[in-house]
Amino acid sequence: MNTSLPLPKHFQAAGIAAGIKQRDVLDMALLYSTLPAVMAGTFTTNKIKAASVKLCMDRIEQAETGRAVIINSGNANACTGQQGVLDALAMSAKTAAQLGLDEDQVYVCSTGRIGVPLPMPCIEKGIEQAVPHLSEEHGALAAQAIMTTDTRPKTFTETLMVDGCEIRLTAMAKGAGMIEPNMATMLAFLLTDAAVDRRALRTVLRESVKKSFNRISVDGDMSTNDTVLCFANGAAGNQPLKPGHPQWDAFCALLDRATHTLAMMIIGDGEGAKKVVTIIVRGAGTDEDAERAARAIANSLLVKTSWVLRDANWGRVMDALGYSGAEVQESSVDLFYNERPAVLGGVAADTPAEDLRQVVDSSAFTIAVDLHLGIGAATVYSCDCTEEYVRINV
Amino acid sequence: MNTSLPLPKHFQAAGIAAGIKQRDVLDMALLYSTLPAVMAGTFTTNKIKAASVKLCMDRIEQAETGRAVIINSGNANACTGQQGVLDALAMSAKTAAQLGLDEDQVYVCSTGRIGVPLPMPCIEKGIEQAVPHLSEEHGALAAQAIMTTDTRPKTFTETLMVDGCEIRLTAMAKGAGMIEPNMATMLAFLLTDAAVDRRALRTVLRESVKKSFNRISVDGDMSTNDTVLCFANGAAGNQPLKPGHPQWDAFCALLDRATHTLAMMIIGDGEGAKKVVTIIVRGAGTDEDAERAARAIANSLLVKTSWVLRDANWGRVMDALGYSGAEVQESSVDLFYNERPAVLGGVAADTPAEDLRQVVDSSAFTIAVDLHLGIGAATVYSCDCTEEYVRINV
Repeated sequence: MNTSLPLPKHFQAAGIAAGIKQRDVLDMALLYSTLPAVMAGTFTTNKIKAASVKLCMDRIEQAETGRAVIINSGNANACTGQQGVLDALAMSAKTAAQLGLDEDQVYVCSTGRIGVPLPMPCIEKGIEQAVPHLSEEHGALAAQAIMTTDTRPKTFTETLMVDGCEIRLTAMAKGAGMIEPNMATMLAFLLTDAAVDRRALRTVLRESVKKSFNRISVDGDMSTNDTVLCFANGAAGNQPLKPGHPQWDAFCALLDRATHTLAMMIIGDGEGAKKVVTIIVRGAGTDEDAERAARAIANSLLVKTSWVLRDANWGRVMDALGYSGAEVQESSVDLFYNERPAVLGGVAADTPAEDLRQVVDSSAFTIAVDLHLGIGAATVYSCDCTEEYVRINV
Repeated sequence: MNTSLPLPKHFQAAGIAAGIKQRDVLDMALLYSTLPAVMAGTFTTNKIKAASVKLCMDRIEQAETGRAVIINSGNANACTGQQGVLDALAMSAKTAAQLGLDEDQVYVCSTGRIGVPLPMPCIEKGIEQAVPHLSEEHGALAAQAIMTTDTRPKTFTETLMVDGCEIRLTAMAKGAGMIEPNMATMLAFLLTDAAVDRRALRTVLRESVKKSFNRISVDGDMSTNDTVLCFANGAAGNQPLKPGHPQWDAFCALLDRATHTLAMMIIGDGEGAKKVVTIIVRGAGTDEDAERAARAIANSLLVKTSWVLRDANWGRVMDALGYSGAEVQESSVDLFYNERPAVLGGVAADTPAEDLRQVVDSSAFTIAVDLHLGIGAATVYSCDCTEEYVRINV
């Protein structure tokens, strides 16, 4: 396990085993800023939301700042009714009390099985354990504790000079199965010691999530628990970042690198997945049409299974394109595997099948579709569907 | 192989091995009415349509009657451009010439791999072979010849007394993988010696397909080749059936039994599938919402894999419900496995997990969702996703 994940100034983390999962497996994390931090968040669009998601959404609407997030894996606290709401509140209240904070400064995230009430004795004992365990050294443990079917932790850290101050952005995520368009079973936490204007942070986070986490597809399902939270505590001492600040674009690019890196780590760790496939659709009538087409290809079970072996099987891509709902004119469709044409003008190009097979045989490749109808474009990331995926999910 | 599939009067069939697939496997079928037959058809909504589908759609628009359909398996003649169009035309012209018919009396269907031109020498030799092979005894051979990944032929035959005449409806279909809402990679042929009004036949076929073939989901993909064709040659001698005829409802019910039976055979033969699951959503705001919700559940890869083992895992059903796009109020959702409640008012019911497991362990069961929001309802049929599915499709 990677034990060094530097945290930004005035952030601490904990990752402990509370007994929610089997014995001695890390299953609770606490992220804490010793200063009040400006907050931004994005949440699942699923109509059925976990109790913790509802709590976070309410809290972030109202609060100017936040200080901590307490996270458990192994149980989603979703479809748990009024009890779930009370449990999420108790989880934040207990954490706030232990840290000596107001309750509205503490956020809650849960991930795991749906429909089972939180084991509150474990959760409460876990909080008591986590608070004294807080340390600048424990970022990697927290990244480990939020995992469910992930095979490895997903982290990012980078620095940037702003106004002569070094600012750091450190981020962690969990993902794997059930990842789709709208961030399914995906938790991500971004911590920075930069000072950032609250409204600007919210706008840039939303845009950044749209281009990264919302563009990945493992199995087409969206979860009840997806949450991205960003804390900016200003400890670096820079002038607040916002549009007009000379380093604003550099900060936005940093945030984009973080979300894109984590999104790629999630897709690369899709349950049973062995390949990361980038789907680019361009030349669509509109961006929306391009996205519809790209998502239909990325989510097609037939397309995803065809990538498992060395088989381009571009007919399945054409089929998905045709039912995507996007405007498509068969005779003007071009389709490429990396730079090699498989289809030109709607019919098979003369690229040898062996060349296409070589592309599909690699662990990362790009399928590009040009519809030649307009300037709409979209990119979506997908992975293959292996027998392993089915084995994990039965 | 079942060698007795009685055909309606004045129908003949052939099923032969033309060498499109490996040697000696049946891969071409011919269905023929010795009298002009009233025709109805429904076709894929995929924007990318096989050449044969385009030919059938054009022809059925214009023709009053039809006499024959020539079908090949092993090659879809889709994404084959202008050559594909010419090949489909040549296939119908050759068949018409051999049968001594006008070309517009002959329909063409293809199913199999996309993007490879039809092997016309095989196809032409196959037609020459099929015509002299036509017989009232060869219905079962035709049902066999249209199969692709199907593990067994799918047929239906039943009689009904109308105006003192015995009419017969015999039908055959191929399906398996890639079946979804809009009849993907699904071919079905319905033959009857009843006299039926042309417009009435078209209306009732459309309705019947909507309730049957368009309600089944194997993997959420819709194909480029789906076609349902119905021939009614009037040889039984009854008064033409249409609304107002005393036996019209009985005939409609017979047609519904045929399409429903074949649809259930297709879902039961989904690639690698071991279970047929009926998804009923009721109490939705609208029928459209109910259908959205039912399809989201039926198509969810996570839901479909959870059925493989004895695991109700209703959280995944709730999750799919939440992202379906249908209006859903979590606290008013009831969810049943057969008659046993898993969720009442949005939270776990106290049915023992073992009881739910027993339901999911059976080879056919029903998941019913009541949204308690209105009177919208829909039923969709699904099957489990097994490792076998992935193995077949790689």
